[in-house]
Amino acid sequence: MKDKVKKVVLAYSGGLDTSIILKWLQDEYNCEVLTFTADIGQGEELEPARLKALSLGIKEENIFIKDLKDEFVKDYVFPMFRANAIYEGEYLLGTSIARPLIAKTQAQIALQTGADAVSHGATGKGNDQVRFELGYLAFNPDLKIIAPWREWDLNSREKLLAYAAKHGIDISKKKGKSPYSMDANLLHISYEGLVLEDPAARAEDEMWRWTKSPKEAPNESQIIELEFKKGDLVAIDDEFLSPAGLLAKLNELGAKHGIGRLDIVENRFVGMKSRGCYETPGGTILLKAHRAIESITLDREAAHLKDELMPKYAHLIYNGFWFSPERLMLQALIDESQKCVNGKVRLELYKGNVMVVGRESANDSLFNAAFCTFEEDEVYNQKDAEGFIKLNALRFIIAGKNGRKF
Amino acid sequence: MKDKVKKVVLAYSGGLDTSIILKWLQDEYNCEVLTFTADIGQGEELEPARLKALSLGIKEENIFIKDLKDEFVKDYVFPMFRANAIYEGEYLLGTSIARPLIAKTQAQIALQTGADAVSHGATGKGNDQVRFELGYLAFNPDLKIIAPWREWDLNSREKLLAYAAKHGIDISKKKGKSPYSMDANLLHISYEGLVLEDPAARAEDEMWRWTKSPKEAPNESQIIELEFKKGDLVAIDDEFLSPAGLLAKLNELGAKHGIGRLDIVENRFVGMKSRGCYETPGGTILLKAHRAIESITLDREAAHLKDELMPKYAHLIYNGFWFSPERLMLQALIDESQKCVNGKVRLELYKGNVMVVGRESANDSLFNAAFCTFEEDEVYNQKDAEGFIKLNALRFIIAGKNGRKF
Amino acid sequence: MKDKVKKVVLAYSGGLDTSIILKWLQDEYNCEVLTFTADIGQGEELEPARLKALSLGIKEENIFIKDLKDEFVKDYVFPMFRANAIYEGEYLLGTSIARPLIAKTQAQIALQTGADAVSHGATGKGNDQVRFELGYLAFNPDLKIIAPWREWDLNSREKLLAYAAKHGIDISKKKGKSPYSMDANLLHISYEGLVLEDPAARAEDEMWRWTKSPKEAPNESQIIELEFKKGDLVAIDDEFLSPAGLLAKLNELGAKHGIGRLDIVENRFVGMKSRGCYETPGGTILLKAHRAIESITLDREAAHLKDELMPKYAHLIYNGFWFSPERLMLQALIDESQKCVNGKVRLELYKGNVMVVGRESANDSLFNAAFCTFEEDEVYNQKDAEGFIKLNALRFIIAGKNGRKF
Amino acid sequence: MKDKVKKVVLAYSGGLDTSIILKWLQDEYNCEVLTFTADIGQGEELEPARLKALSLGIKEENIFIKDLKDEFVKDYVFPMFRANAIYEGEYLLGTSIARPLIAKTQAQIALQTGADAVSHGATGKGNDQVRFELGYLAFNPDLKIIAPWREWDLNSREKLLAYAAKHGIDISKKKGKSPYSMDANLLHISYEGLVLEDPAARAEDEMWRWTKSPKEAPNESQIIELEFKKGDLVAIDDEFLSPAGLLAKLNELGAKHGIGRLDIVENRFVGMKSRGCYETPGGTILLKAHRAIESITLDREAAHLKDELMPKYAHLIYNGFWFSPERLMLQALIDESQKCVNGKVRLELYKGNVMVVGRESANDSLFNAAFCTFEEDEVYNQKDAEGFIKLNALRFIIAGKNGRKF
Repeated sequence: MKDKVKKVVLAYSGGLDTSIILKWLQDEYNCEVLTFTADIGQGEELEPARLKALSLGIKEENIFIKDLKDEFVKDYVFPMFRANAIYEGEYLLGTSIARPLIAKTQAQIALQTGADAVSHGATGKGNDQVRFELGYLAFNPDLKIIAPWREWDLNSREKLLAYAAKHGIDISKKKGKSPYSMDANLLHISYEGLVLEDPAARAEDEMWRWTKSPKEAPNESQIIELEFKKGDLVAIDDEFLSPAGLLAKLNELGAKHGIGRLDIVENRFVGMKSRGCYETPGGTILLKAHRAIESITLDREAAHLKDELMPKYAHLIYNGFWFSPERLMLQALIDESQKCVNGKVRLELYKGNVMVVGRESANDSLFNAAFCTFEEDEVYNQKDAEGFIKLNALRFIIAGKNGRKF
Repeated sequence: MKDKVKKVVLAYSGGLDTSIILKWLQDEYNCEVLTFTADIGQGEELEPARLKALSLGIKEENIFIKDLKDEFVKDYVFPMFRANAIYEGEYLLGTSIARPLIAKTQAQIALQTGADAVSHGATGKGNDQVRFELGYLAFNPDLKIIAPWREWDLNSREKLLAYAAKHGIDISKKKGKSPYSMDANLLHISYEGLVLEDPAARAEDEMWRWTKSPKEAPNESQIIELEFKKGDLVAIDDEFLSPAGLLAKLNELGAKHGIGRLDIVENRFVGMKSRGCYETPGGTILLKAHRAIESITLDREAAHLKDELMPKYAHLIYNGFWFSPERLMLQALIDESQKCVNGKVRLELYKGNVMVVGRESANDSLFNAAFCTFEEDEVYNQKDAEGFIKLNALRFIIAGKNGRKF
Repeated sequence: MKDKVKKVVLAYSGGLDTSIILKWLQDEYNCEVLTFTADIGQGEELEPARLKALSLGIKEENIFIKDLKDEFVKDYVFPMFRANAIYEGEYLLGTSIARPLIAKTQAQIALQTGADAVSHGATGKGNDQVRFELGYLAFNPDLKIIAPWREWDLNSREKLLAYAAKHGIDISKKKGKSPYSMDANLLHISYEGLVLEDPAARAEDEMWRWTKSPKEAPNESQIIELEFKKGDLVAIDDEFLSPAGLLAKLNELGAKHGIGRLDIVENRFVGMKSRGCYETPGGTILLKAHRAIESITLDREAAHLKDELMPKYAHLIYNGFWFSPERLMLQALIDESQKCVNGKVRLELYKGNVMVVGRESANDSLFNAAFCTFEEDEVYNQKDAEGFIKLNALRFIIAGKNGRKF
Repeated sequence: MKDKVKKVVLAYSGGLDTSIILKWLQDEYNCEVLTFTADIGQGEELEPARLKALSLGIKEENIFIKDLKDEFVKDYVFPMFRANAIYEGEYLLGTSIARPLIAKTQAQIALQTGADAVSHGATGKGNDQVRFELGYLAFNPDLKIIAPWREWDLNSREKLLAYAAKHGIDISKKKGKSPYSMDANLLHISYEGLVLEDPAARAEDEMWRWTKSPKEAPNESQIIELEFKKGDLVAIDDEFLSPAGLLAKLNELGAKHGIGRLDIVENRFVGMKSRGCYETPGGTILLKAHRAIESITLDREAAHLKDELMPKYAHLIYNGFWFSPERLMLQALIDESQKCVNGKVRLELYKGNVMVVGRESANDSLFNAAFCTFEEDEVYNQKDAEGFIKLNALRFIIAGKNGRKF
């Protein structure tokens, strides 16, 4: 394949690894390299990536830097939260949900620029390579894909640094740079590697970058009010913001109160288990609040159907199948359920806890205290319960009368 | 039916409501009444129930008091936690899981004593009537069931008190008795009614009975270690206790650290929404720990299959179908998965937070750091990922080449 | 309730049973009765129902007769067939799918005419009462429902006939009328009762009304071609017809060739098993053809997701939950999958057999023989399969190396 | 890898392709080759395979021929039929279910003989390579796997024949040998390739090998009676046979009456669609009969749970995950359901049709006609239906009163 690639779009962060890849692509593939750097809220300035690319010989017009923050939250994060998606009971899919958007935008740049290949810096053992490449191919089945980590022999930190040194790539460590393998976007930041490779070992306090430790969070709790329309967050404390603005605000609130740290062992799509630590402050609040507004506005069976399908939906996103007929089908089902998910939820934030303290919906609440009290009401006749129970029990009664035992 | 009942076994707590029912059964049905009082860890002495029953004219030999705590935890709570069961994303099913055991034991007493009927004090609007009655009928389809709340006209607090007064039942309020409608057992305590009937209104601080508020929990965190065998908890900090002993210990630890409070609106089986507050301190810790030990010992697809079926399993328990072929089928599936779920989990408890800080399994860990690192290993060849991704993408490639668009 | 009903809309067939109900409503409820008779393709003339109603004292303006055949097929039958819905592996839901439309139309007539009640002739032991009443209440929760079979004491054939005779209702048996309990519409005809009440006994040959016996079907087979657009049938042998016209044509073809007889024991929603025989000639052909056109146009995972959800969808329809949020959610998912289900299917019909002999789709086929042959092609590299298999096996390899055994 | 293999066990049919592989392994890998030939009812004599192997230089003690017919039916086919497994609505999984047994036995022979590798003749585009290799690795994660079709350059019929000729392998076509790519075992025979590669083209009459065409089947129908114990077939017409004997007998009956032909386009695990034709005469009868005996002995919710999980179970088998924790979990669930599936089913076989004409179970029938009739009975009170419906409708009533519309 090496002599067939003419023009490749590289997902470029400006960091050491993707800079080495940039150089390696130029050398090994002898092709024109375009860089694509996305702002999905990772919290880093992007201009240094431009300068770095220029310094590595990329032409100005071949450098693409895009702010995808609002698209990310509006079209990826929010649809996913409509489903209350959680992977393996714990993980809020922060990395998984960002990859499809990057892949789609990268494939679009390839199309615009006539590039015939794309490249990314994900390793050959992780989930991200799958998520990137399924995304590329869903948009353009003819794209060539270069995954250097699966190809080259720079398979140790030492070899990488040697390669960088040899090719004049700056390898001085950024001050304050974390030694962990990390990923960040508006929804979360993640950590892998080092001490985390022993699941029995505790994560170090200094590893966490975004949130306060619950122990160092304020002694005063804070109450906030979230407003939802059709299942999506639209305002915090009556302040209407853009999707990205809302999530940034939630992150700030959660981080302050020590909310959203997670330390798990998860199952990768490629077949092995891995340890990951995550901080998802805003997402943790959002999930709790979304469930709360659903609790008063969603029909029971609609809610149960969503719950039964959620794991499958979460697996699809984790495994990289965001752009797939099956995810679109599930999304159609989920979105159909959210039409009346309107209202407000009040939450108390305190040292790692997110506690629902109130929920209301002016027009869409299905809650009616009168139906629950033990006194009589007009809608519910307690005697109906006898027939309801008897017919629900009928199959047990028939079985029992036939001598079947439990 | 009234003239046909000869002997009825009443689920009797010794409280005002079931004492009124006791009297009402004697008067209305003119039949012999037996009382059954179960200790499932509700935290009340049972001897007063005996005295009360005697005082209401029940014969000594007709009073049945049973300690079901270990059976409850071993055969009901633990099997349910193997499934990581949660109803509607939040509720740990504390009330739901206790009803079948009470119903089964009550049906057995009826059988032993030749009683032809059973009776309970659950109202006609709640889930518990269903859980009790499905349980009775699963064990004896011929039992007559008397549900006074659906039959009588004592449908207000005033009428009840008047009836009690008229029949010489002590209506003096116990000191410190909660005004809420409550249920308690070794797994949890629940609250309904009063201010909770407005889902927008915050629960009062003084309502909560078991746990400290996170705000009043100790400033010092505590680390504990839980050991599992075949998915069940067997020891806490190397102390091997009975099932009930273990759960009691976990409750104590959780309560101290402000763990396990929950405030939700849930969907009842009988069709309406209701607000409930729950304290499940030990259960909250147990769920987190069980997921953690599974995370290193359970195969990925086994874990995912469990996650996909869990909501259905939880619905069954919530709706009262513990003794049903479908629950037994799901239990067989779940139990099959737990054979290798052995090992230890360390957790830090702090002001409402349960944080996993380590997990290990001497013989059953499927975690191997070597497979995750970005360096080469013997088992995993990074180049395999290319084929893996390509064939996973093949259907997108074919669709794309046929002109199908996302 | 009896003195509260002023005006009731009765689902009226013109037959003996609903004529008795008509009279009984007049007498017992002393209210104005409106009749509603729907043509959903049951194959009976409706004018006799008008005359009968008039003869029983119903005013001309209170008689409603509606042709719902096209609405039935277009908005009920076709959406259901998009899902390939089958109840308990066999039953094509012919009765179930018609009830919601009748109920909806009846509720609408009540609304237009200011009626405060509706009534139907379904018994208290069957599924149809549920389907009717859930439909009524979904459209108007305030409607009073009168279900005579659950109320009156005419609970035997003798009492009914006596009542009819006493009230001057003609009880002479129609010539050729079947002794079975039957239901018919454009999708099917069903039989219950008599010899069928013994599941070991064979159905009588003369019971079947619509289809030839396979043994009496033509010795010559017939090949037909069905064309689909977005999952719906649009033409037969290049003849474009209305939805009802298409189904009628398919019925004719199937009936001629002995197709679509079914004899099963099914589980009713109300809790018991019952024996039913069904003839669904057109539906049987349609299901086979729809699966065939999907087989070349539908993505694999889209197809599998549909298959996994189909039983739940079928249970909802069987149980009467057509108008429910959960059915609408599933329908949204199913409809999303059908966008590219376009093309033609050729079938051979022969003595009870429906055999697919060809399928094609001009623009939407995902089938490409080149990918399947054992020779090399450009899209598929056989060496990719090695990586694909290895990573799919990785969890077994890791487990095996850790000593886990099957 | 080529210089590392010392001893390889080849799945050997005695045919041309695996004979070429045998030779190729000797030449390319320069290793000792052992042959394993299984009798799973493919209907070919196995002694010729022994002679052929000897002629190709395999030592007598390195030739393994095993009769696996009873193990195949008892431990693979029957457990699968307990689930009523069907892939994509049509395919009875005849090939899929045989591969795991072959793989397991082959891996066991490798273990016994100290072989370090296994090899098979499945191509790189099909499902069978996956099924074989997942099976091998589940039993021995250290086995090396040689898949010649993915390795060599004999990627056309011409090259293969040239290679055979060059190495003295007999390439004379067996008389009557089908030109299709075929697979056969006791459960079915399959066809791929040639004209079938056009899904619009009809399969040729002469392709089918096992069954009569429905058109040529006897004009007289035949009634047979199948007896089941715990969900498994135990006797046909009161004749108790071994599992393999039973299936062989059913095949004979089905073949005679033109039963079990199937022509479909299916989705392969490796990502493309393919056309396959199948004859499954006995299996087609067995499935129909098993559903019929379940229809009177299985609880409703047990049956529905099975139906909902069946597609997943079928996908697992199709994809080669027979030996996986998730299949074992599902099997545990299914087997739990079959305890009472005992009784007899009578079927009429006629020109491609399998018609149930009676079912009975002496001790385990849950069918009771009395509960279905419209007359009163003791168990079922029709008035109970009112409460049952009202509470099932309650969520619609509440939603409707809150103004929610369908």
